[in-house]
Amino acid sequence: MYNFIDLQDTIVALATPAGSGAIGIVRLSGNQAISITNEVFQAKDLQQVDSHTIHLGYIRDEQNKIIDQALVSVFKNPHSYTKEDVIEVSCHGSRYIQQQLIELFIRKGARMAREGEFTLRAFLNGQMDLSQAEAVADLIAAESESAHQLALSQMRGGFSDQIKELRSELIHFASMIELELDFGEEDVEFANREKLQELVQQIVRIIKRLLDSFQLGNAIKHGVHTVLAGRPNAGKSTLLNALLNEERAIVSDIAGTTRDTIEEILNIQGVQYRLIDTAGIREATDQIEAIGVEKTLEQVAKSAILIYVYDQTTLSPLEAQADLQKLATADMNIIVVANKADLHSQNQAPSSLEENDTLEKVTQNLTTPYTTLSLSAKDKTQIDQLKQLLFDLVASGQLQQDSSIVSNSRHYEALQSALQSLDAVLEGLEIGISNDFLAMDIRHALNYLGEITGEISTDDLLGNIFSSFCIGK
Amino acid sequence: MYNFIDLQDTIVALATPAGSGAIGIVRLSGNQAISITNEVFQAKDLQQVDSHTIHLGYIRDEQNKIIDQALVSVFKNPHSYTKEDVIEVSCHGSRYIQQQLIELFIRKGARMAREGEFTLRAFLNGQMDLSQAEAVADLIAAESESAHQLALSQMRGGFSDQIKELRSELIHFASMIELELDFGEEDVEFANREKLQELVQQIVRIIKRLLDSFQLGNAIKHGVHTVLAGRPNAGKSTLLNALLNEERAIVSDIAGTTRDTIEEILNIQGVQYRLIDTAGIREATDQIEAIGVEKTLEQVAKSAILIYVYDQTTLSPLEAQADLQKLATADMNIIVVANKADLHSQNQAPSSLEENDTLEKVTQNLTTPYTTLSLSAKDKTQIDQLKQLLFDLVASGQLQQDSSIVSNSRHYEALQSALQSLDAVLEGLEIGISNDFLAMDIRHALNYLGEITGEISTDDLLGNIFSSFCIGK
Repeated sequence: MYNFIDLQDTIVALATPAGSGAIGIVRLSGNQAISITNEVFQAKDLQQVDSHTIHLGYIRDEQNKIIDQALVSVFKNPHSYTKEDVIEVSCHGSRYIQQQLIELFIRKGARMAREGEFTLRAFLNGQMDLSQAEAVADLIAAESESAHQLALSQMRGGFSDQIKELRSELIHFASMIELELDFGEEDVEFANREKLQELVQQIVRIIKRLLDSFQLGNAIKHGVHTVLAGRPNAGKSTLLNALLNEERAIVSDIAGTTRDTIEEILNIQGVQYRLIDTAGIREATDQIEAIGVEKTLEQVAKSAILIYVYDQTTLSPLEAQADLQKLATADMNIIVVANKADLHSQNQAPSSLEENDTLEKVTQNLTTPYTTLSLSAKDKTQIDQLKQLLFDLVASGQLQQDSSIVSNSRHYEALQSALQSLDAVLEGLEIGISNDFLAMDIRHALNYLGEITGEISTDDLLGNIFSSFCIGK
Repeated sequence: MYNFIDLQDTIVALATPAGSGAIGIVRLSGNQAISITNEVFQAKDLQQVDSHTIHLGYIRDEQNKIIDQALVSVFKNPHSYTKEDVIEVSCHGSRYIQQQLIELFIRKGARMAREGEFTLRAFLNGQMDLSQAEAVADLIAAESESAHQLALSQMRGGFSDQIKELRSELIHFASMIELELDFGEEDVEFANREKLQELVQQIVRIIKRLLDSFQLGNAIKHGVHTVLAGRPNAGKSTLLNALLNEERAIVSDIAGTTRDTIEEILNIQGVQYRLIDTAGIREATDQIEAIGVEKTLEQVAKSAILIYVYDQTTLSPLEAQADLQKLATADMNIIVVANKADLHSQNQAPSSLEENDTLEKVTQNLTTPYTTLSLSAKDKTQIDQLKQLLFDLVASGQLQQDSSIVSNSRHYEALQSALQSLDAVLEGLEIGISNDFLAMDIRHALNYLGEITGEISTDDLLGNIFSSFCIGK
């Protein structure tokens, strides 16, 4: 567990990734950061230098033995990441040297930083709110443009500024109502009930929009779970290869070539899709295939987007529709791909209907949203259209640099709880509930909203959040 | 191959190890380093700021999209590592951000740095000599205290300062002798032959000492090849475990338990030993064992130190001696370990001689240096003494922080060649060789010595050296 008693200590950690490189950085933060460094770095008195300056010199141990020639950067409080005195020692990127430096600083009075402790201190010292601190970890982990932009937007304030503003307005009403309580039986009304109702309704609207954005935010952060499914030999693996533009999956004319599910990352316009190719669905002919089909159904159930692929030269729209209805659930997006368009003009389709009619038939009884596309995975026709469809389903018009998107499940849960409390407030106002209950519901909502930005926080909550950081951040 | 034409370009590379961490550093060096950074960093005009200062701001791409909030450090030529303008962008340690920054800088006119190009430029711009530049790579790779101290000493000048000084004295004589050549048939002598002889003898002494240090230098850099060998069930694996103080090798009472050679790193007082446990040597009873014995003999032949282990309760000193003589070669150090001292007091030794006599017998006809020790690997007695013996063999009294030790095989070869030329000079002086031959021999020696420090260098040589660096250094 996190220990919040020793936050006055000066902490030290390796700030750069472990391993060999040209440069490694050992970082200190705290009251003694400068005096400790002064003891081992004699080139200059770092107490006397300006903040944000860099100094070259040798770092020596207690026996005056040189550990390294290094560049020492000085950041004086409050002009640093943690708002404490911070020293960054930029040394040769050798594991041995980094280890020796850290041990030396610990012998001189620093202690090893805990996970995320630099950022925790930045939060506690008011450098950033809690959701911004969480965004720092997201930013480091971001591997696609959209995840990166999302983290950056959250780090720069994102929706938490909005939350903070609305919350402070709500606090005003809460104190008015609590003031009314002090007057007990007297019939006073300091808080205008109509204005309170308006404010709460406004907050509810914003929270609902934020909650709606979570699916997108989560998908951006972790990749959109996208499953290719259909009968054996429908051309799913060929389509996977066409989307990835490489020969990832083994393809053959033999039905049932794919047994294990294959997962690959596809990046479309900066959004990451976790693209999963599955074994074809049919009555299994052996044990291995049966396991494959079972795995496919598990993957389909988890999918955010289902790409249902069928061979339009051998399967009738009605058969395809029957297949699809077995797979579809209410909360997934569906793209129906009628594959083998290249053969379709030569071979007669089982159905005599026009192509468009055919595709409509496949999907006509579905309650879930869907889009249809006829293509040839083999000839790679319409692949760009399919990618555009995938992108539109997730991010169409929603991916602006500064848009308010919730991607953190802790925020999502707090927003849901806040919404419940606010609904209770609205209901209470409607039926004229007593002031003490009203005040309680408002307080609950305030607490949940405050948890997002960290205006309300417990040691448990903070320990939970920062222990998932890396040491050195 | 290295290209030496485009050294005027501004170069960029990731300077910290690849991967996620709190901080990553992207480094630029060259004429345009500051102007390129100014284009993407609007917080301040970096042309106007002082050298060695740090500036916080956003890095934006051509579409004004934020890539990261970063700290930009400015080093103005010649006050930088490369003696060129250098910019270090300290960004959030995300692979995505680092990649985006590097791509942005390349679009703005920088090019990707080649391996070691920052250090190559430091060398070419006179920041350090060639042997110091090579020490930078050694310093980053150093994983033990002695290897670290060796690299640090070389980086700070080490023996190359000495070489440079002697070389410049020798240059003086060379020019005098070449001046004599200009006077052709006239009998002039500008170069005092006696003083030349003295100087060359002095250089020869120093070179010989440096050549002698190479075995130690090489051992420190790469670890001392130390092989445990002996008959099956002599307790070699038990001794390995005792030295490592962990249960690394599988031990049993069954002779021939170890089949594959096992290699572990043992650090004694900062010196690294590559400790190799081998299969016991006897007439093999099966194919696998025969391969094991063959591997053992290969390892023994390569060893710098051979620890010959025998079971003093079952083997007579004469038998041990016969074994050892088959293994020993002239250029290895030998430690003879009479194992199972714990049983020796109970069981009667096959020989009735005193213990000391016994050990002497084992080694009495060896021409190689040796030391003897009776111990119990099982009870871990005398293990510290064995470690001290190992350390003394390699480094006794020789490991001073600023001692002149050659660890680089390129330097070793150049010194050997220089020695040959200088021997020829001495011989020529002895027999009164003609001036033109004398001058030629001195020139050769000067070239070889100059190659060490880089006063004489070819593009091939430099390409060879720096291509083994990492990119970013």
